[in-house]
Amino acid sequence: MTISTRVQAVSADLAEIVGARDVFHSDDVGDDYGHDEALHVAPVTPMFVVRPSTPEQVATLLRYASEHAIPVTARGSGTGLSGAARPLADGMVISFENMAEIIEIDVDDQVAVLQPGVGLAELDEAAGRVGLMYSVYPGELSASIGGTVGTNAGGMRAVKYGVTRHNVLGLQAALATGALIRTGGAIAKVSTGYDLTQLIIGSEGTLALATEVTVKLHPRLAYSATLLAPFATVDEVVGIVPAVIATGCAPVIVEYIDAMTMASITYSQNLSLGIPDALRDTAQAYLVVSLENRDRDRLDGDIELLGSLVAQRGALESFVLDGGSARALISAREKAFWTAKAAGADDIIDMVVPRTAMPAFLSRSRELATAAGGAAIGCGHAGDGNVHLAIFCPDAEARRGLLRDIFALGMGMGGAISGEHGVGRSKSAHFAELTDPAVIAVMREIKRGFDPAGILNPGVLFGEGEPG
Amino acid sequence: MTISTRVQAVSADLAEIVGARDVFHSDDVGDDYGHDEALHVAPVTPMFVVRPSTPEQVATLLRYASEHAIPVTARGSGTGLSGAARPLADGMVISFENMAEIIEIDVDDQVAVLQPGVGLAELDEAAGRVGLMYSVYPGELSASIGGTVGTNAGGMRAVKYGVTRHNVLGLQAALATGALIRTGGAIAKVSTGYDLTQLIIGSEGTLALATEVTVKLHPRLAYSATLLAPFATVDEVVGIVPAVIATGCAPVIVEYIDAMTMASITYSQNLSLGIPDALRDTAQAYLVVSLENRDRDRLDGDIELLGSLVAQRGALESFVLDGGSARALISAREKAFWTAKAAGADDIIDMVVPRTAMPAFLSRSRELATAAGGAAIGCGHAGDGNVHLAIFCPDAEARRGLLRDIFALGMGMGGAISGEHGVGRSKSAHFAELTDPAVIAVMREIKRGFDPAGILNPGVLFGEGEPG
Repeated sequence: MTISTRVQAVSADLAEIVGARDVFHSDDVGDDYGHDEALHVAPVTPMFVVRPSTPEQVATLLRYASEHAIPVTARGSGTGLSGAARPLADGMVISFENMAEIIEIDVDDQVAVLQPGVGLAELDEAAGRVGLMYSVYPGELSASIGGTVGTNAGGMRAVKYGVTRHNVLGLQAALATGALIRTGGAIAKVSTGYDLTQLIIGSEGTLALATEVTVKLHPRLAYSATLLAPFATVDEVVGIVPAVIATGCAPVIVEYIDAMTMASITYSQNLSLGIPDALRDTAQAYLVVSLENRDRDRLDGDIELLGSLVAQRGALESFVLDGGSARALISAREKAFWTAKAAGADDIIDMVVPRTAMPAFLSRSRELATAAGGAAIGCGHAGDGNVHLAIFCPDAEARRGLLRDIFALGMGMGGAISGEHGVGRSKSAHFAELTDPAVIAVMREIKRGFDPAGILNPGVLFGEGEPG
Repeated sequence: MTISTRVQAVSADLAEIVGARDVFHSDDVGDDYGHDEALHVAPVTPMFVVRPSTPEQVATLLRYASEHAIPVTARGSGTGLSGAARPLADGMVISFENMAEIIEIDVDDQVAVLQPGVGLAELDEAAGRVGLMYSVYPGELSASIGGTVGTNAGGMRAVKYGVTRHNVLGLQAALATGALIRTGGAIAKVSTGYDLTQLIIGSEGTLALATEVTVKLHPRLAYSATLLAPFATVDEVVGIVPAVIATGCAPVIVEYIDAMTMASITYSQNLSLGIPDALRDTAQAYLVVSLENRDRDRLDGDIELLGSLVAQRGALESFVLDGGSARALISAREKAFWTAKAAGADDIIDMVVPRTAMPAFLSRSRELATAAGGAAIGCGHAGDGNVHLAIFCPDAEARRGLLRDIFALGMGMGGAISGEHGVGRSKSAHFAELTDPAVIAVMREIKRGFDPAGILNPGVLFGEGEPG
């Protein structure tokens, strides 16, 4: 068989599974399917794109791929930042755009049952209509729920509600062997065998593909307020976080934003926060804390408590933002990635370290960046110790060394390479180099158990990495 | 080699690893090592008991056991309810009594680093001294932290704080191959490869042994209060739970106790709750809700809100218990297992179902028990849908059929066999019979990857079960 005959034959087989209208191959494959939003993972157009409509079709596709040794990359909305949705040239993208239905929102059990293609924005709207919300809130609300399961997405509200793995209760998943399994369910806890739900979450499409996701919803509290406090140094901002947490106010957002990042997000989003010029010149970093409550008076009391705390701890000032300004700031902060990208950042990382290690991690990272002839600026989920750094360092080799040094630094402090973006293709070389080989060996065994033919996202997580 | 020569030789080798004082074999092995608290798993005295003092010794023991095909059962305090700490006759118990040190309590990061043998009561005391608490609170506070990791223990506070898997941030674990690995850490979130922490939690000693556990601590809130509300029917009690959760009061405990269980725990614990006789005669079930707050007035406000809610929903009365009575009731509820055991219960199960399925599950379970010539009474974590039933059904065969029918019933409602006790040896036959073979197959592959020689707790989870 010539290559193109084989492609035709596979294509016909795929059409048998999902219908001809939902199979694309070769030149008919759109460019979008070749990349996600990772800054340094080169786009690769896959040979096939299929759009299944049912879990059974997904399972059948995986069995077929296993039998025919076709690499498979799952794709939700393609908003990932680590290249886990970047396919291989001879591979197949399974796109979940035809499986984007909210199957059920159960108000009494406070759960939603979702097809993987459902977008977070749609889920938020649907849950909101019944007074509930899904708490996982990464910057990009066009992200699909399936994609967030793949990367174990986090976002700003994680300090109160946890990340994806704390909010997904159950999955239906297609295995590489063609089986469809159910894990967990609309239940609060399980101790009945290995927790496959947790294992699949964050596995970046390398173990199984979620075909249905059951998530926990929370009551949507009526009142919220945001405190913005400029400080003279980044260290002071990240240093105050344990005290903020210890108040017991259960903040829903605890972010730090350095001066350069604040300047670029306010400028690019045309945001006016009413901060006097003199103050803006002195402030090197900002603390952003949002609170929510079902009771207006309690909220006011808590905001007052926080106000005194930040004043005591050296805040240059503090502002309680009204609804509009608060939303604008949070939304600008969410767009920090795009701002950094527009500003020419060469890479974006999201290392996580113990909360109290943040000041040392940040100052040493900046020194490393300077020494490498670059810069590291950013913002992050201070409440979680999750530091988002935009790396400016155009030379590929210098940048690679810098990233390795920053990752090694944070790991030495008890941290991990990624808090919520995942390893994907962009960080797999560093992951391989810096991780205990015994850990990698166990992970490889797990991978082999799930995916004996090795068709699920080969090169992701265990790859040799992509040239920067 | 005769059997006894082999035992002597192995014993000498083990003494090389942990020191002669911490190796016992044959007749020197104490009876306690032969069982946990499962009601229907026959005690078996193991051939060897070793008490390592360091993680490295644990790892070396596992490598030795793998090389010599010796079954290994880990033991914390032996308080498990499913027989996962019941060893095999030719096996070795690794007891963690010499590894019971609190390594660190970090107030700013709100984490504790613990050796596996640390008891929950000691941890509670140590955390309390710095204004913090560990939220996992199963009935038995003599349980060890390592044991709770093995079973993914829950307890009454899970409705607010989650179960063990939501509160363990990282592990050091010994693998069957003799490697010591670290997973997670003192960090709030990780998206860097498969979550081995979550995989090991709840694996009942079949994948790896935790040699160090890093847990999340929470602020200890100053004020708490407990509402006790008798209802005419169990259905009303469990039916009101979604409304209790929906208030947003974030209750720390939401329990139901049926009349028979209330009678036996109050009687056996000599507990007076001040409930008038007439009311006691009418009440068929009780709702217990505990709230906590850092602010006295807010607590009072929330208790009032709950009081109106239960009144509206048909409570016969409601009592706000003062500190002493509340503690006494909660503590009596914790001892429900012992009360049921003393009352001659033939088995104890802890099925979990969706919250809203509880009324149907309870009433159908009772019917099944009656039809089998037995009875099912109990109490449970109503907020979690976690139903603890004491099964009275002395005939072993009838009981086995009854349990299978109850498990099948709950699974049909989207539930799981165990919410927090684990499968262990006591439920492995039902687990094997009722679980999707594709799920079992994946779990077996994982097991094989971690434990190629099959030495870690053989018979647990995947066993054929024990004769009742």
